[in-house]
Amino acid sequence: MTNLKPSSKALVPFVSVDHMMKLVHHVGIEEMLRGIADYIETDFKRWELFDKTPRVASHSESGVIELMPTSDGDIYGFKYVNGHPSNTADGLQTVTAFGLLADVASGYPVLLSEMTLLTALRTAATSALVARVLAPKNAKVMAMIGNGTQSEFQSLAMKTIVGIEEVRLYDIDPAATAKCAANLAGLGLRVTSCESAQEAMEGAQIITTCTADKQYATILTDNMVGAGVHINAIGGDCPGKTELAPAILHRAEIFVEYPEQTRIEGEIQQMDADHPVTEFWEVLTGAAKGRTDDKQITLFDSVGFAIEDFSALRYVRDRIADTGLFHPLDLLADPDDPRDLFGMVQRAKP
Amino acid sequence: MTNLKPSSKALVPFVSVDHMMKLVHHVGIEEMLRGIADYIETDFKRWELFDKTPRVASHSESGVIELMPTSDGDIYGFKYVNGHPSNTADGLQTVTAFGLLADVASGYPVLLSEMTLLTALRTAATSALVARVLAPKNAKVMAMIGNGTQSEFQSLAMKTIVGIEEVRLYDIDPAATAKCAANLAGLGLRVTSCESAQEAMEGAQIITTCTADKQYATILTDNMVGAGVHINAIGGDCPGKTELAPAILHRAEIFVEYPEQTRIEGEIQQMDADHPVTEFWEVLTGAAKGRTDDKQITLFDSVGFAIEDFSALRYVRDRIADTGLFHPLDLLADPDDPRDLFGMVQRAKP
Repeated sequence: MTNLKPSSKALVPFVSVDHMMKLVHHVGIEEMLRGIADYIETDFKRWELFDKTPRVASHSESGVIELMPTSDGDIYGFKYVNGHPSNTADGLQTVTAFGLLADVASGYPVLLSEMTLLTALRTAATSALVARVLAPKNAKVMAMIGNGTQSEFQSLAMKTIVGIEEVRLYDIDPAATAKCAANLAGLGLRVTSCESAQEAMEGAQIITTCTADKQYATILTDNMVGAGVHINAIGGDCPGKTELAPAILHRAEIFVEYPEQTRIEGEIQQMDADHPVTEFWEVLTGAAKGRTDDKQITLFDSVGFAIEDFSALRYVRDRIADTGLFHPLDLLADPDDPRDLFGMVQRAKP
Repeated sequence: MTNLKPSSKALVPFVSVDHMMKLVHHVGIEEMLRGIADYIETDFKRWELFDKTPRVASHSESGVIELMPTSDGDIYGFKYVNGHPSNTADGLQTVTAFGLLADVASGYPVLLSEMTLLTALRTAATSALVARVLAPKNAKVMAMIGNGTQSEFQSLAMKTIVGIEEVRLYDIDPAATAKCAANLAGLGLRVTSCESAQEAMEGAQIITTCTADKQYATILTDNMVGAGVHINAIGGDCPGKTELAPAILHRAEIFVEYPEQTRIEGEIQQMDADHPVTEFWEVLTGAAKGRTDDKQITLFDSVGFAIEDFSALRYVRDRIADTGLFHPLDLLADPDDPRDLFGMVQRAKP
């Protein structure tokens, strides 16, 4: 008798937004940020074996839709992500995402997952992993400039991975600061709401900028940034979108994920194409130096790279196995005889 | 009170394999092939306004995983598809696929769909659309060489769109021919099983080749192909994979989808990089000539292009609206305040 139900090969585990939120609460958000950072560190240390390509972007007047693929030779992954700064005005997210892992040997997908939330987690985990390595020793205070979607995730990741004890919030919209402060209340950080970026940076060893306008903005001017800090620049992440005055870039040691992509999308799009930068993975493997001096300004010019998504998806895949936080999705046609797709359709006739 | 259920913006219609099979039976397979061909024809006629890019391929020893994006400025679409010739030996499909449509203005996905079955339908619909334009007038007989997954879809599409009355089947594996013949029984075609490719081609005005080996194969040699035929070459679709002897290519008028991709993946990878080809969409708009002579050999060197998937997904989106053949999938995080993703997670705490 023909079995008309999809076989196990046809079913792909799907992690919905609801599942991802349950996973966050099941694991604990700080533990999950640490776990994702560990997976990213593991993958950055084997950077050279990955298939790397700049993201494939489709630009329009209102924003961009991107596909970010990579592979370590055993597993293939990609993320779909959009960036539409004006979405907020319509009550929509500026960034939504989902992602997939597949088995390289067979090409069959093995995980489909929401990644709007997971991207927020992996971005914060990456920032904190980098800051743990590059920030001045015993950094305890972070300025958080831009208090939108990323701000709470950044703050908690810096707390749990770097040991930050105080975040100093600033946003041009006080309502955003109030939202961030309220969300962080009771989570173990001293939270100070500030009236200006300058005030937020008082006493901060780490300065995180994460603002959303798609234009050449200058969130930090040269005179605002003193010696001996680590700048974690998140918001300059597509062509035409930057946050730092070029003079700061000239004073800083610049660390990037994947130069081919960062030179197009990051803060360094303002610099000459051969301006020296260090690939962060080389700091992790010891092939390049990180911070060499307490007085240095280190800058992580972060635009987000496919390997970070790959690591985050690997983490989710490993964690859902024991929690059951997924649905089996009937995504793949899987006839009994692989050459008999037509017969499968015929046998499904009502 | 906070509503913890996903909003309608967060839910993406998902068409499973089961839904797609139900849609095929609801619409009728021939009607669906004609409908998809109409959508492809519409999109080919507005070819120039599409964002076009060769597919993004990740090759491995066992196969390839590809992303095929495109956009018409209003809608963005992409397909994930693998090609793993040795999968059949493991009881898996050589090709599986799924695809997505998104709203360009917001970047939000609007449809996620299985595409293993849909790819089979759109490939056959494309072949038949092209053959309707290029094949000799009153073509009634098709040779179907390679009797795998595509063979029945190709046969039915050629019947309903071109008016083919007889298919002559040949495969190096007689079991594949027997499967194809059994599946086509009673569907309105005269089906003749043959012992050789030569025999299958007797009296055929259309010759479809669709074999799966990833190697330079010669399914058709020069002396096998007479004048006044249309060759529909499907199986030569990735680097190193071809089916036709170069001498045939020299005698034929060659029509392609997107030359930038076909020169890498199609039969013409065997030819000089400037070997003349005609883009098929130009024949539809009248910008280029199709068949000009009954004695000509026309060749459609088909590798599959993103716009065909885009058209097929558009067709599915339009047809599921009134049939309800989809699940709403909780794919996108959609907090009440778009900047408050963290708060949404906190409020979901059990």
